[in-house]
Amino acid sequence: MTAPSDPKTANQMWGGRFAEGPDAIMMAINASIGFDQRLYAQDIAGSRAHAAMLAATGILTPSDAEAIGEGLLTVLSEIETGGFPFRTDLEDIHMNVENRLKEIIGAPAGRLHTARSRNDQVAVDFRLWVRDQCDAAIEGLTALMRAFVAQAEAGADWVMPGFTHLQTAQPVTWGHHMLAYVEMFARDRSRFEDARRRMNECPLGAAALAGTGFPIDRQMTARALGFDRPTANSLDSVSDRDFALEFLAASSICAMHLSRFAEELVIWSSAQFRFVRLSDKWTTGSSIMPQKKNPDAAELLRAKIGRILGATVALFTVMKGLPLTYSKDMQEDKEQVFDAADTLMLGLAAMTGMVGDMTANRPMLAQAAASGFSTATDLADWLVRALNLPFRDAHHVTGTLVALAESTGCDLPDLSLAQMQGVHAGIRADVFDVLGVENSVRSRQSYGGTAPDQVRAQVARWKEILA
Amino acid sequence: MTAPSDPKTANQMWGGRFAEGPDAIMMAINASIGFDQRLYAQDIAGSRAHAAMLAATGILTPSDAEAIGEGLLTVLSEIETGGFPFRTDLEDIHMNVENRLKEIIGAPAGRLHTARSRNDQVAVDFRLWVRDQCDAAIEGLTALMRAFVAQAEAGADWVMPGFTHLQTAQPVTWGHHMLAYVEMFARDRSRFEDARRRMNECPLGAAALAGTGFPIDRQMTARALGFDRPTANSLDSVSDRDFALEFLAASSICAMHLSRFAEELVIWSSAQFRFVRLSDKWTTGSSIMPQKKNPDAAELLRAKIGRILGATVALFTVMKGLPLTYSKDMQEDKEQVFDAADTLMLGLAAMTGMVGDMTANRPMLAQAAASGFSTATDLADWLVRALNLPFRDAHHVTGTLVALAESTGCDLPDLSLAQMQGVHAGIRADVFDVLGVENSVRSRQSYGGTAPDQVRAQVARWKEILA
Amino acid sequence: MTAPSDPKTANQMWGGRFAEGPDAIMMAINASIGFDQRLYAQDIAGSRAHAAMLAATGILTPSDAEAIGEGLLTVLSEIETGGFPFRTDLEDIHMNVENRLKEIIGAPAGRLHTARSRNDQVAVDFRLWVRDQCDAAIEGLTALMRAFVAQAEAGADWVMPGFTHLQTAQPVTWGHHMLAYVEMFARDRSRFEDARRRMNECPLGAAALAGTGFPIDRQMTARALGFDRPTANSLDSVSDRDFALEFLAASSICAMHLSRFAEELVIWSSAQFRFVRLSDKWTTGSSIMPQKKNPDAAELLRAKIGRILGATVALFTVMKGLPLTYSKDMQEDKEQVFDAADTLMLGLAAMTGMVGDMTANRPMLAQAAASGFSTATDLADWLVRALNLPFRDAHHVTGTLVALAESTGCDLPDLSLAQMQGVHAGIRADVFDVLGVENSVRSRQSYGGTAPDQVRAQVARWKEILA
Amino acid sequence: MTAPSDPKTANQMWGGRFAEGPDAIMMAINASIGFDQRLYAQDIAGSRAHAAMLAATGILTPSDAEAIGEGLLTVLSEIETGGFPFRTDLEDIHMNVENRLKEIIGAPAGRLHTARSRNDQVAVDFRLWVRDQCDAAIEGLTALMRAFVAQAEAGADWVMPGFTHLQTAQPVTWGHHMLAYVEMFARDRSRFEDARRRMNECPLGAAALAGTGFPIDRQMTARALGFDRPTANSLDSVSDRDFALEFLAASSICAMHLSRFAEELVIWSSAQFRFVRLSDKWTTGSSIMPQKKNPDAAELLRAKIGRILGATVALFTVMKGLPLTYSKDMQEDKEQVFDAADTLMLGLAAMTGMVGDMTANRPMLAQAAASGFSTATDLADWLVRALNLPFRDAHHVTGTLVALAESTGCDLPDLSLAQMQGVHAGIRADVFDVLGVENSVRSRQSYGGTAPDQVRAQVARWKEILA
Repeated sequence: MTAPSDPKTANQMWGGRFAEGPDAIMMAINASIGFDQRLYAQDIAGSRAHAAMLAATGILTPSDAEAIGEGLLTVLSEIETGGFPFRTDLEDIHMNVENRLKEIIGAPAGRLHTARSRNDQVAVDFRLWVRDQCDAAIEGLTALMRAFVAQAEAGADWVMPGFTHLQTAQPVTWGHHMLAYVEMFARDRSRFEDARRRMNECPLGAAALAGTGFPIDRQMTARALGFDRPTANSLDSVSDRDFALEFLAASSICAMHLSRFAEELVIWSSAQFRFVRLSDKWTTGSSIMPQKKNPDAAELLRAKIGRILGATVALFTVMKGLPLTYSKDMQEDKEQVFDAADTLMLGLAAMTGMVGDMTANRPMLAQAAASGFSTATDLADWLVRALNLPFRDAHHVTGTLVALAESTGCDLPDLSLAQMQGVHAGIRADVFDVLGVENSVRSRQSYGGTAPDQVRAQVARWKEILA
Repeated sequence: MTAPSDPKTANQMWGGRFAEGPDAIMMAINASIGFDQRLYAQDIAGSRAHAAMLAATGILTPSDAEAIGEGLLTVLSEIETGGFPFRTDLEDIHMNVENRLKEIIGAPAGRLHTARSRNDQVAVDFRLWVRDQCDAAIEGLTALMRAFVAQAEAGADWVMPGFTHLQTAQPVTWGHHMLAYVEMFARDRSRFEDARRRMNECPLGAAALAGTGFPIDRQMTARALGFDRPTANSLDSVSDRDFALEFLAASSICAMHLSRFAEELVIWSSAQFRFVRLSDKWTTGSSIMPQKKNPDAAELLRAKIGRILGATVALFTVMKGLPLTYSKDMQEDKEQVFDAADTLMLGLAAMTGMVGDMTANRPMLAQAAASGFSTATDLADWLVRALNLPFRDAHHVTGTLVALAESTGCDLPDLSLAQMQGVHAGIRADVFDVLGVENSVRSRQSYGGTAPDQVRAQVARWKEILA
Repeated sequence: MTAPSDPKTANQMWGGRFAEGPDAIMMAINASIGFDQRLYAQDIAGSRAHAAMLAATGILTPSDAEAIGEGLLTVLSEIETGGFPFRTDLEDIHMNVENRLKEIIGAPAGRLHTARSRNDQVAVDFRLWVRDQCDAAIEGLTALMRAFVAQAEAGADWVMPGFTHLQTAQPVTWGHHMLAYVEMFARDRSRFEDARRRMNECPLGAAALAGTGFPIDRQMTARALGFDRPTANSLDSVSDRDFALEFLAASSICAMHLSRFAEELVIWSSAQFRFVRLSDKWTTGSSIMPQKKNPDAAELLRAKIGRILGATVALFTVMKGLPLTYSKDMQEDKEQVFDAADTLMLGLAAMTGMVGDMTANRPMLAQAAASGFSTATDLADWLVRALNLPFRDAHHVTGTLVALAESTGCDLPDLSLAQMQGVHAGIRADVFDVLGVENSVRSRQSYGGTAPDQVRAQVARWKEILA
Repeated sequence: MTAPSDPKTANQMWGGRFAEGPDAIMMAINASIGFDQRLYAQDIAGSRAHAAMLAATGILTPSDAEAIGEGLLTVLSEIETGGFPFRTDLEDIHMNVENRLKEIIGAPAGRLHTARSRNDQVAVDFRLWVRDQCDAAIEGLTALMRAFVAQAEAGADWVMPGFTHLQTAQPVTWGHHMLAYVEMFARDRSRFEDARRRMNECPLGAAALAGTGFPIDRQMTARALGFDRPTANSLDSVSDRDFALEFLAASSICAMHLSRFAEELVIWSSAQFRFVRLSDKWTTGSSIMPQKKNPDAAELLRAKIGRILGATVALFTVMKGLPLTYSKDMQEDKEQVFDAADTLMLGLAAMTGMVGDMTANRPMLAQAAASGFSTATDLADWLVRALNLPFRDAHHVTGTLVALAESTGCDLPDLSLAQMQGVHAGIRADVFDVLGVENSVRSRQSYGGTAPDQVRAQVARWKEILA
């Protein structure tokens, strides 16, 4: 991954003060180039913005600035084409880039680091990277929401059991269930938007920690890098990792949502449920049981919250109790965020694919919706409306009727009117109208309810938002 | 805390279906009244809004609705005056309130539960409570920011060492250091504002999970309870705990900030640092070492992130992989959020008190700022500006001078001009101007830098914002 | 819970040095008596052992020691009968007990604290408490294992589907499945035993942190309190919370096991599975859906890992980066461990009750075991044994036969011999012997396999161990 | 890292049932070869043991078994020399090895998978790997303990301040402080030993989940792989990840210990403390502040607990609520454990190097020990012993004397006898004997106390244990 290191060179890097070079263990624990090379584009963009600003403010000569700007593009191209010799002894991406720049353009490279420090470079590079990941998450969530909306539109009136405690509660519609996830992922999206907005301040110009005496223009670098404004306190600028933590927290909530639907897919794919059929693309076979069709992708998505929550805990633990300003502990931020972001983006893509491909088993859904006394609430509501019973009394009467049906081994609509009247004399034949699942779902017309009309209205709203 | 329970009554609560009552262990693990009684005000407010809406939509008669509304106020008053007999056998706050209402007003109480369910009651009560905690956090953060701004104003030009790696890096000002925390707590405040805005949708009307067939008006209850709008999907409404997780995540970040300043206070209070003196209010003595003055409050605040992060992990773990909609697992949400919120509010108050009371030890700060070659960067910058050295060369020359001073046993300003010129012939006498710490901080005029003028400008900005 | 506090008294407690008393917030954040009163029995036992040792070594007069010993028993009795006036201004259980002792016996009480400190009192009290919890966990686990063994014995040959990925994989036996949990809980038990052994060293005598110049006998106090030996380093003695962390970690693993079986119970109780019937004791009804029988206890047990893992993370976060020796941060240890221990013990009891009460639905289990091509592996193994096919080829042939059955809409035993020979000519009629689920489970005679004989052998082994 | 994949081949791998191959996202999320190739040696050892057993029990012919055994050695050698073509389309290490074996030896390779499954292969490979890491941790801890013991031996009587709350409490010895960490790391070592013993059971022979009908000899494979015995329940064997969780938990506690000493090193390296000088090997310079000597390695070690605790939380979260037996979620176990183990081993090595190299600053330690009224407890103890004051009274008198010294601006030994007698008339001139720090530490002769003799006794004990 990285070229063999030369302790002497490493030693030179820190100036004339060190009598010894770090030994191999120190290099292994200290060097970040193995992972922070991922920030190369951000590092070069930051350096180019800094150099342009140094020229505009007269701190660098135009010719030096131009040499630097061009040289950095050469470095960028070398990295992107795979020809760049990353060196562990140069420790991190910042020194690797600057060192290579010096090889390419010579003396002017030594002027690039004027009025800045590795501390604010680290801060700006990583912030730019996390900001990009917010954008990627927003995009991935949008695609996923579209996939759920498409399922909702197709099945706005397909009846299925609504569960609480994994017990059949009331009939609902497939579309309604799909839209519940659209709500969740919409909140996720809005969290990433808020996080992005909050982090969009440029730390460049904080220098080591105190700001600088050079007449720099922080507004200019902020603008050049797409930030809303420069940060307002240089000590905070180099100490702050809130943006990473907020990204991780938002990712954890999103991963939790993924885990919930993944769990449903695993349960729904079981031989006992058979509510859904996942496509072969997202399932695998077994080496010993040829008949198996395992929902591997769903299981992996269920698990991924572990990885992302773990990364979140890791960074919180690292940041706990750190005095200002920069401490080397903070180098532990990147790998956690890199892994969490990669995991999230892959998870969103996989879920989008799975949702797009899956097929609801309508007959099984309908059959399950009709069993388990799922319209008991409709019966109780009928008793309230038709007989003016207080709800608590209606509830009691319904419970007795369910117990009767259960002991008889039938479902509610199978009880005779006489049997019903044996429990409550006022019950009339039109009670049977509310005991059908189709009637039940159609009746739930309250805003946000499961009635197909409500579902279609929400589908229309989301299609407009996601257009 | 709660009255002895009667298994027979508990049995009655679930209607006629259960042959046996739950046993003692089940009651201990299942009942939530021990903690959810804290939601009494929210529960009663929600029920009053629901009853008023039922009357307005003709589902309840005006007289029933009025009896309910008045009866609920009686219940509220009983609870607030401590006379309410909480009963474990009634399981939760919702059943306790409704049962007592029935004792007070009789039959109409049985009509209150029309067109709703415990599921949406739980959801609305808890959401209202968490929303209040967002407000409390915002208020507590505002007070804390004011305390830091007051310290910053007083010490805008007090010189102290700025640290990286807990090593003296460059001189900064006390005011600048204080303002770094204002930035952090301002981000916290904005996170609670975003969370509040996102959670401010009313789940009432979702009923058990599917919505209801009664002609309810969800806009009306939403408005009555101060929500921006009703939630748009009833399944999501009873399954969603994002608002709790987002509150916990924001609290964890805030607690991390508290832990950082707390660590600084502990270190600064040591005999070796003596940077700050905490008032007797926030320190304690020792049972065996009479001379001790221990920064207990700071230590506890450093620790509190553990508790809040633990609560966050707890709720994420609970929610992982839960299928829709409500599962009893979700009852684990409340105690975690209660404890985290209490801890946060107490922590903000304690930190506000400590910051308000603490006294900076200016002579120690100044002395520490001047030692440790803290103006080496200023020297390097001077070499760049005055001699037009590339920064990397200036850095090397400075390193050699520091090594010379260290081996001589003196500080940088104590080197003679001849000694300096021995390292780089171009160095002139005016170099000594930049080696004083006062000059150093004054020079850092970049936006957000440590110069007293910059600090005062930021203090003015914050005072306006916090006015 | 605690008597109103008197700031003046609090002030006195720390000696003559403090000009002010702590204010209300400080008292709320600092005092531990609200929770550490739970350690009263341990505190008194520790003090009695200390006093007896002080007498034996001549540091106290016999009469003073006797007065102290008797007085402490009076305090113990007052606490146990509920008559003890806990005072927040006395901060913690140690000061509450000692102060009350002074009220009861006067001057000699002041000699009890000779050669010790609150630091080693805290350490010994909490360690004794955690040691008791290890014993409680071991006892609770033993009961739970017995409940699973009883289920295993009853159903050693009841056939059920074995799942991987929640897909039917191979038929197994109910007894075998139950014994899997016995293995898990046996490991848990052994972890608590190891933790108990490791923590069983007595910190008393470490004094504040450095040991003491009084000629104390640490072996004597260690023995008196049931410890194996005194701790070997006084600094470590007052800084160590490993015993709490190890208890929490072991509890988290155990809670994870509980969550797994709880998940199975929730899934098995669904209308789609109906593998098991939970007794009414461990289920509850719904306020709006009278037909529901919700597996609340199972859901709560599934969730409890959140709480315990959260406590674990909390204490790790607290301990991270604390310099030696005691810091007040460590006061955060107790509430986390108290809550985790209570949760674990209640969870073990509830699970023991549920497992004892649950009824397997044998017909459903048998039917599910026979479907889903569950004996495909047996077929593949037959091809290896009878036809000497390499396993990988046998696997391929089996896969083709499964696909044929699936497209035909039948199960494997329903294929005709001709159909089978169409896939592989060598297949003979005796292949049908291995396609029955009873034959399948009977054949799996490898050690630890699912064959009823193997299950019965393991049941016998466990009954002996648990006798 | 891995060769380009061929969807068609992937398809073939699952037999004849799948109409489509998994697409690119699925392959990215599903394939484990990118990380589980690390298990190659364990996989091959397991397969060799399995093949030898199949031959011994007559399930394989001797010639097939020999071909397999030899072929696997060829594969091993290819991997170790870097010539092995890992293929993502073959998903994992097991299929990569078996596929290559087939290329090398042809038909007999197809017989290796007789009587086993990927599930028990995964279980045995990973368990072997984690067992090796226990051994590595034990070795690493032993080296670290030796480094601390060497420091303790050198400085058994060097006086330094003992801290509580980071406030000077009592004088202690450097050796005593070093030995506190030996105790901690000894407990860590014993935890890894217990974990190793508990996990040392062989899952091979569990097959997919139910055991097998082939007449295998599980004792033989267990012995061949160094296990104490085979596992006793096949369902548990393929579902269990306790060994990984216990390893992670033990690693987290160990990392917590590392974080504590690392924090001490960071604080002790500050300009204000200067208690210790770290060698250049473990420190780095600054790009902008040439005078800095940053304790980077210590900071990184302080941070590493984040990573390890994060991995622990991740795996707990993954395992929460998984039904038996194997679910694909469990594939998330390996990367977490790999990273945590690598981090721990590197951390132990780095800390061993740092401790071996560091130099205590004896004059600073002695000076700090003597300040801050550190012998106040000795004074209080003198009052108890010499004047027979109750400890609580002695404590009060001492507090008054400390306040007097503080207001006078001197230390305790600087008070005159007259001043002391003004506070308590009975004080005699020999009180000054106990006010010296050397006398203080010498006096603390209780077992495990800080007296140099006690320290030397413990050093001798540890040298024997670690010999």
